[in-house]
Amino acid sequence: MRLKVLGSAAGGGFPQWNCACSNCSRLRQGTLKGRARTQTQVAVSASQDSWILLNASPDLREQITSDPDLAPTSLRGSPIHSIILTSADTDSVMGLLHLREFQPLRIFATESVQRILNEENSLFRVLRRSDPPVRWEKLPLNQPVSINSELCCRAIPLPGYLPDYVSGQLRATVREEEAIVALHLTQGDKKFSFAPTLPAFNDETKCTVAESSLAMLDGTFWTDDELIRVRGSGKTATEIGHIPLSGPDGIIQQMKTFQNTRRILIHLNNTNPVLDEESAAHRAVVESGWEVSYDGMEIAL
Amino acid sequence: MRLKVLGSAAGGGFPQWNCACSNCSRLRQGTLKGRARTQTQVAVSASQDSWILLNASPDLREQITSDPDLAPTSLRGSPIHSIILTSADTDSVMGLLHLREFQPLRIFATESVQRILNEENSLFRVLRRSDPPVRWEKLPLNQPVSINSELCCRAIPLPGYLPDYVSGQLRATVREEEAIVALHLTQGDKKFSFAPTLPAFNDETKCTVAESSLAMLDGTFWTDDELIRVRGSGKTATEIGHIPLSGPDGIIQQMKTFQNTRRILIHLNNTNPVLDEESAAHRAVVESGWEVSYDGMEIAL
Repeated sequence: MRLKVLGSAAGGGFPQWNCACSNCSRLRQGTLKGRARTQTQVAVSASQDSWILLNASPDLREQITSDPDLAPTSLRGSPIHSIILTSADTDSVMGLLHLREFQPLRIFATESVQRILNEENSLFRVLRRSDPPVRWEKLPLNQPVSINSELCCRAIPLPGYLPDYVSGQLRATVREEEAIVALHLTQGDKKFSFAPTLPAFNDETKCTVAESSLAMLDGTFWTDDELIRVRGSGKTATEIGHIPLSGPDGIIQQMKTFQNTRRILIHLNNTNPVLDEESAAHRAVVESGWEVSYDGMEIAL
Repeated sequence: MRLKVLGSAAGGGFPQWNCACSNCSRLRQGTLKGRARTQTQVAVSASQDSWILLNASPDLREQITSDPDLAPTSLRGSPIHSIILTSADTDSVMGLLHLREFQPLRIFATESVQRILNEENSLFRVLRRSDPPVRWEKLPLNQPVSINSELCCRAIPLPGYLPDYVSGQLRATVREEEAIVALHLTQGDKKFSFAPTLPAFNDETKCTVAESSLAMLDGTFWTDDELIRVRGSGKTATEIGHIPLSGPDGIIQQMKTFQNTRRILIHLNNTNPVLDEESAAHRAVVESGWEVSYDGMEIAL
């Protein structure tokens, strides 16, 4: 299994277009030891010429065109065949609209995510222009699905919320447990867990991560009050669906014993001190045995 | 009036993610004399620290973050205050979702375009998160609107179609004449016409362009059968709402007498031979007195 991190930042990217926090300002000025990052996007391959996207980031066009492995192999022959969605959040789905140029695709998503996109967002009909049109595939909870001849995927429900943009009417008829999932991808004995949004730890997630050779997990915020500290107001990390990294209930402490799993942070928010490679937070992450993903990171499992 | 071309390609950009036509292949291989281009985006300024976006391209995050003039001037203080939309096409509106990070904005659009985005695309509710939330402003046809204290804008209806994604139900209740407009922006005696999509010439467009000091117009296709020739099937340029550049009815011939207007092509499709600076088409464009816009082009009027 090959993995590529095409983007590693949370929603808005790093720097964020309208933000002049310490991290963003110093990155623009060239005084931060750290890298610019596009919004979280991972591509997975089980064979040479076939790639599967995990989510579809708002920066997807830029991410695809800058990677020679993802260039078309014939006149209209992209090696990208499938997309697996973990939620209907803007960050996860907006990039589907980048893929509108007459390309047959398969999109795996829970029934609730599909209903949000197809029942109250007519823009996604642009994906029907291809011949054959896009195929929306089921992504049931807790049940392995065959993505192609090599890869299987199991969606693990997470205790998250539906995106705030969903109408009250639809909200009443979809299932909140299908709102946000973690993905467990397997190819033979290779096991990879992917959860860029982790609203809370449940036993299922813990057990799945523990048996994975690789886990890419929610690195959005360092502390629970990070947004409030930077902006002067707002919500806590937990309130907007992300366990912070630090603290006794943080991701790092809770996964302290998972030493057999290669652990990588992804989906880092522009405010996160971990983005500053000279910060105490970055040091603490590395000393705990974690890696911090970056745009262009490649992994072979 | 200052203008910046942040993006100059048609939908999909150049190269296009899933296309290996002659232009795209040669650009990837480095054998084409020409430039990569992001999707059409123009920014206009009438004063030092205030910018107005014409449309919101799918590549908008990348376009904003790579231009120091558009960087925030305070903690949450983007110099971008307003957006004027010419249609509800994916290329024109998708970038609004890039602007979702709690930024108060004003969006000018015809009533029909507003209804398409707000009545059947719940994703755009993410723009309400800011405080104050986004303000949708009227853009009436043929009537000047004050965008800020310096700039006025008049929307000129073009004989185009509603986007194909719009539902039958909504289609029956909106006005097709509001589907696609050209913009005529004025600051004192400075006059700028903008029409990245020109489905046909009408007298109104001709007269407006003739009295403009600058016109940026639809450079999508060189010939009417361009897409069919490249792909082997498909629709003509005219059928999908673009007058071709060449030929007796083409834009260049029809604007031959408009010598007092500085004429610039924008919204070039990846298949357009004009993108190849060594092509006969590119030569013909330049010899007719036209310029070809590129990402990063700046103009002072």
